[in-house]
Order: sequence, then C-alpha cells, then structure tokens
Amino acid sequence: MTILLDALLRRPVTRTPVWFMRQAGRYLPEYRKVREQAGSFINLCTNPELACEVTLQPLRRFRLDAAILFSDILTVPAAMGLGLDFTEGEGPRFARPVRNEQDIDRLPQIDPETDLGYVMEAVRLIKRELAGRVPLIGFAGSPWTLATYMVEGGGSREFKLVKTLLYNRPELMQRLLSKLAVAVADYLNGQIAAGVDVVMLFDTWGGVLTSQDYLEFSLAAAQQVREQLNCRDGKAIPTILFTKGGGQWLEAMAQAGFDALGLDWTCDLKQARQRVGDRVALQGNLDPAVLYAEPHVIRERVGQVLDRFGFGPGHVFNLGHGITPDVNPAHVEAMVEAVHELSPAYHF
Amino acid sequence: MTILLDALLRRPVTRTPVWFMRQAGRYLPEYRKVREQAGSFINLCTNPELACEVTLQPLRRFRLDAAILFSDILTVPAAMGLGLDFTEGEGPRFARPVRNEQDIDRLPQIDPETDLGYVMEAVRLIKRELAGRVPLIGFAGSPWTLATYMVEGGGSREFKLVKTLLYNRPELMQRLLSKLAVAVADYLNGQIAAGVDVVMLFDTWGGVLTSQDYLEFSLAAAQQVREQLNCRDGKAIPTILFTKGGGQWLEAMAQAGFDALGLDWTCDLKQARQRVGDRVALQGNLDPAVLYAEPHVIRERVGQVLDRFGFGPGHVFNLGHGITPDVNPAHVEAMVEAVHELSPAYHF
Repeated sequence: MTILLDALLRRPVTRTPVWFMRQAGRYLPEYRKVREQAGSFINLCTNPELACEVTLQPLRRFRLDAAILFSDILTVPAAMGLGLDFTEGEGPRFARPVRNEQDIDRLPQIDPETDLGYVMEAVRLIKRELAGRVPLIGFAGSPWTLATYMVEGGGSREFKLVKTLLYNRPELMQRLLSKLAVAVADYLNGQIAAGVDVVMLFDTWGGVLTSQDYLEFSLAAAQQVREQLNCRDGKAIPTILFTKGGGQWLEAMAQAGFDALGLDWTCDLKQARQRVGDRVALQGNLDPAVLYAEPHVIRERVGQVLDRFGFGPGHVFNLGHGITPDVNPAHVEAMVEAVHELSPAYHF
Repeated sequence: MTILLDALLRRPVTRTPVWFMRQAGRYLPEYRKVREQAGSFINLCTNPELACEVTLQPLRRFRLDAAILFSDILTVPAAMGLGLDFTEGEGPRFARPVRNEQDIDRLPQIDPETDLGYVMEAVRLIKRELAGRVPLIGFAGSPWTLATYMVEGGGSREFKLVKTLLYNRPELMQRLLSKLAVAVADYLNGQIAAGVDVVMLFDTWGGVLTSQDYLEFSLAAAQQVREQLNCRDGKAIPTILFTKGGGQWLEAMAQAGFDALGLDWTCDLKQARQRVGDRVALQGNLDPAVLYAEPHVIRERVGQVLDRFGFGPGHVFNLGHGITPDVNPAHVEAMVEAVHELSPAYHF
C-alpha cells in the first residue's frame, strides 16, 4: 500500500513505484468491451459500478502501485450546468460556454455529494474493492485547463477565445479561475472524504501560456486549490501537480505547495531534480510513444528514465502523458516489468 | 537595410528591428486574392512572380525590417519526389512516404537550381524588387521536422511512425537526418547564392522529442546544416534557429553555431538572455494570440516583451509562432508601431 505514498513524500523505498496516466483506458480490450456495454463515454463515467470495473482492470494485468479513478476532467463544468456532450471523434463540446462576465457570475457552486455523487460513489466502490492493496489516486482538471474548455466550448488548438478573454479582461479571467479553484477544491475534498489516498491536478493546457501568465493565472489558481484541500483524519493527503509543457517553470511549481510534480517527457529528470532540490518528488516521464517500440527498446528507455532521476527516493515512474489508445498491452507489461526489475538498483 | 543584420550579430542599433513569421499570409486580404488567382497553395509557391508579390505585400502595409521568402518547408521533400499534395483543410500529404531503409537510401540528392529553380527565381525577383531597402530572409525546414512529415506522410499529432523509427532504428534515423542535412544545406546555399541576406531554420517539431533525443537527433542535424552553409563574397550569412517548444534547451542551442535563436512565446526572454549569455541574439516572442486582443493591450504586451529582453543589442522582435489567419491587419499595425515607438528606449 505504501510505496507510492512513500515515494511522493520522498521517503526511502526499495524500488521505484509505477503507475501511468490513462492506465484505465482504450488500449485495453476489456475496457473497450465495458465502454461498448455502457453505450457512451459519459454513461461509463457516470455509472459507479462500470467506472469501478475499468479502474480495476489494469491492476489485474500489470504490477501497478496505484489505481487512478476512472473519470474525466470535465465533470466539474458539467456539474455546473454547461451541457457537456462528447461527440464521437470530435471530443467534448459544451452547449453553454462561458464567454462574458454574466456567464462567469452565474456559475453555481457545486456540492460534490449531490452534483457529482456518481464520482463519490465510484470512489467508495473502488476503495472497497481495492481493500488496501494499492492506494487510489483521485484527480481534477486545473482551474486554467477547465477554463480553456469552458470558454472555448470544447477542445482547442489556438485557444483564441480564452486567451482573448485573458488578454483583454485579466481581472475577469482571475474571477473565473478563483471560482473554479473553489469548485475544484470542493470536488477534490469530496473525493478525499470518500476515500482517495492521493490527489492529482491535471493542468493539461498550462503550457500554452507565456511564462508570466502561467505563473499569474494557471499556477496561482492551482495553488489556490492546494490551499483549500482538507486533511482526512488529521493527515494531509499527498498531492501531485502535472503541467504539460511546464518544464520551464519547475522552480515556481515546486513552491506551490504540492508534494510532487508530474513531468512530461520533454523534461530531463536529472536537470529537473537539480532544479527542484528536495522540495518535491518527481513523477514521470517516459515518452508514451516509446510504447510503440520493441520490448527490448522499451526496457532500455525505462532504464534511461530511472537513470536520469538517479539514486535515492522521490521518484514515481510514469509516462510523460496519457497512454495512447493503440498501444499493445504486452508493451505496457514490458514497461511495468522493467521498472520492477531495474529500479531496485537505485534504492537502498 | 542593416538594422536586422546588426541585431542578429548583436551590434548596437537605435531601435529593435521587427518582422514576423508568416507575415506574407492569409490574414492579408491582398494575399487571399493572389492565392485565389493562383488556384492552389502549391501553384502560389511554385510561381516566382506570385511568390514575389505576396512576399512584398506586408512591407507595403507595415514598417517591417525584413522580408521573408514566401515558400513552404516541404519544398525539399517535394523536390525529392515524395509526391506532395495539399488537400484543403487537411494539410500536406505525401503520396510516397519514407518508411524503411530502402526508402531512405533511394532519396535523391537535390540540385537547387534545377529541382527548386522556382524558389531561386523567386529569391532573385524579390531581391530586385526590394532594391536593398530591407534584407530578405531565406529559410528551410530542419532535418528533423522534414523527417516527421516524410515518415508520417503528412502532419501528425502523436508522431507515431517517426518516433517508432527513431526508437527502434536510431542509426537509420540518423542516416535519414544526415541526408536531409545535406539537402537542406544545398537548398539554403542555393538561396544564399541567389541573394538571401539571412537564413532561418524552422524546427517546428523539435519540441516533441525528449531532451536527449532533441540534442542527438534534431539539434545535431541542425548543426550539420549550419556547418555546410556557404559564405557569399567571403562573408558569412547570419543564421537563425527556431525550435518551437525548445525553451528547455537554449544553452545547447546557443552552441550549435547559429547567430540567433528564435523563441516561442512560452520562454521568458529575460531568463533566456541570462542563459545564452552573449553567444547568440534572440528573436521573439509575442504570443500570436495577443493579436486577437484590443490594440491598447497589444501595445502593452509588446512593451512587456521588449522589457523582458531589456536594454542593449541582440534582440529581434517577432511573434513566438506564425501569425494566425484570422487576425485583423489593423492589430498587426498596432504591434509593429508599438515596436517602433517603444523600443528606442532600450537602445543608446
């Protein structure tokens, strides 16, 4: 149970723990079967029994050190009444995007137990099924990342609308982000109360901002979330912040109050460790595309990641981004087994 | 004529020179008219008179300090016989992608004057029309960036095929990149002989690699290009390397032999300047999305970019990436004028 938690808190471990982003997902045939049974992605997310089932699937195949709640980062804006829909092949769309002051001011507060009860129920089911074997990671999208979808009305390439709002009306953007920070913290506190052992904040789109705007908008709002998180039974829950494309800002991220930083695959772990010192643990960062390579190459590349972090505690092995849907599960096994076999050499 | 060249060589100037990526492009109604007249993007690229015309268009509107050749980075693989086609809304496709050892070994050498004569002719026309008023920037795609399109057969999001080749057969990828380095250098040497005053290497996709692979594959091949560039009349032509997403690797990029580095908008110019010291000039880096904002915001943001670089020579003002097609030309004017008005304060 404790190897992931120990590593996140930079305590000594005997090997490097391993889990990976989107480990409950489309690359698994058993996931695709349940997904088909559910009829839609949203049905799968909102059905606690099915969400529990797909959360547990990768643990039956691989020697993983954590489960991560199967859910979506857009559950929060969906609960705010924005009208979320996933159209096949096109990604998420909001029927009622947030475009102006009025839209922002009328965003409702959310109550996790009533508005997102299906997530809380899934957490409780998964915790019961896990029975303490491995910890459960809960998560949410960062305020900035949620804002990009809410303002754009869906996914985006150039972030025209959300950046125009940020540039023209920075005070309004801050108001939106503060509201979202409260909602995200409430949501994560709900997950903590329901039983998750770790919480992770996904800042998928922090990396599209300028340096200064990342610090003032995205990171500042992430820090607001962190500051509003509750303890459980008097103990703090370990926290992870992942900003894709955030490699230039690690020093600042390391001071935002999180226990660990998730790194994408473009970061060099050795330099990253030097830059953050002993302030945070680091999680990452194999290029997900390595899983397309042959198993002996995967093993070699896993070795390089472990080697770049080097000796000692404070490393959680992960991919540098979510696994892609067309990866062969046998290649995932090669990765996980390589971590088990090669990482003890980096610990006492 | 000399302000851009002086800034690229870190010589004193009285204000910061300004030009911007894709300045000859779709945001200009007069460009769209010529594009329509040409019938297709390829027709426009391959017609020296029309390419000359659209190259000059932005100079008639704005007080720019350089022209940049209107062309496409994929002219080189097209000249190699890969069968380039641009389908409307879908981007470039190659009929004959490069997937294996045989494909790589049979890639022909190219002769710029015969295989890419239309580009050389455009350069000569533009130089004649410019009559020394401002310098002309020539360019090419970097070997790695060209390789991504050639192996994938077009644009990509996950770079599955090209990364699989790199991971499984690194020696083969190096062979491809070395061949491309020769072709790109030959092409740029052709442009230099035809009259361009500066050459810029666009490494659009260097930023999708791991740190180590960026250095060993993308940057190493860019350096090979640099080493094969000719002088003209016994004088070296100033060179610029732009890697989108390369902010983590500036120290290494500054040692690859280029006179200047192009920076995307996520880099902080002050930190970048500290990191590269006096080894290179820096070009950039206003977020292209700032041009969606109101003119007074654009002016303020231009001021911030100038301020982050700070006092002294070695800065060329630019966007951090190409201008987007739906920008209002009046907003471009606000940017260019702000550079003219605000930048003298940063020079003697």
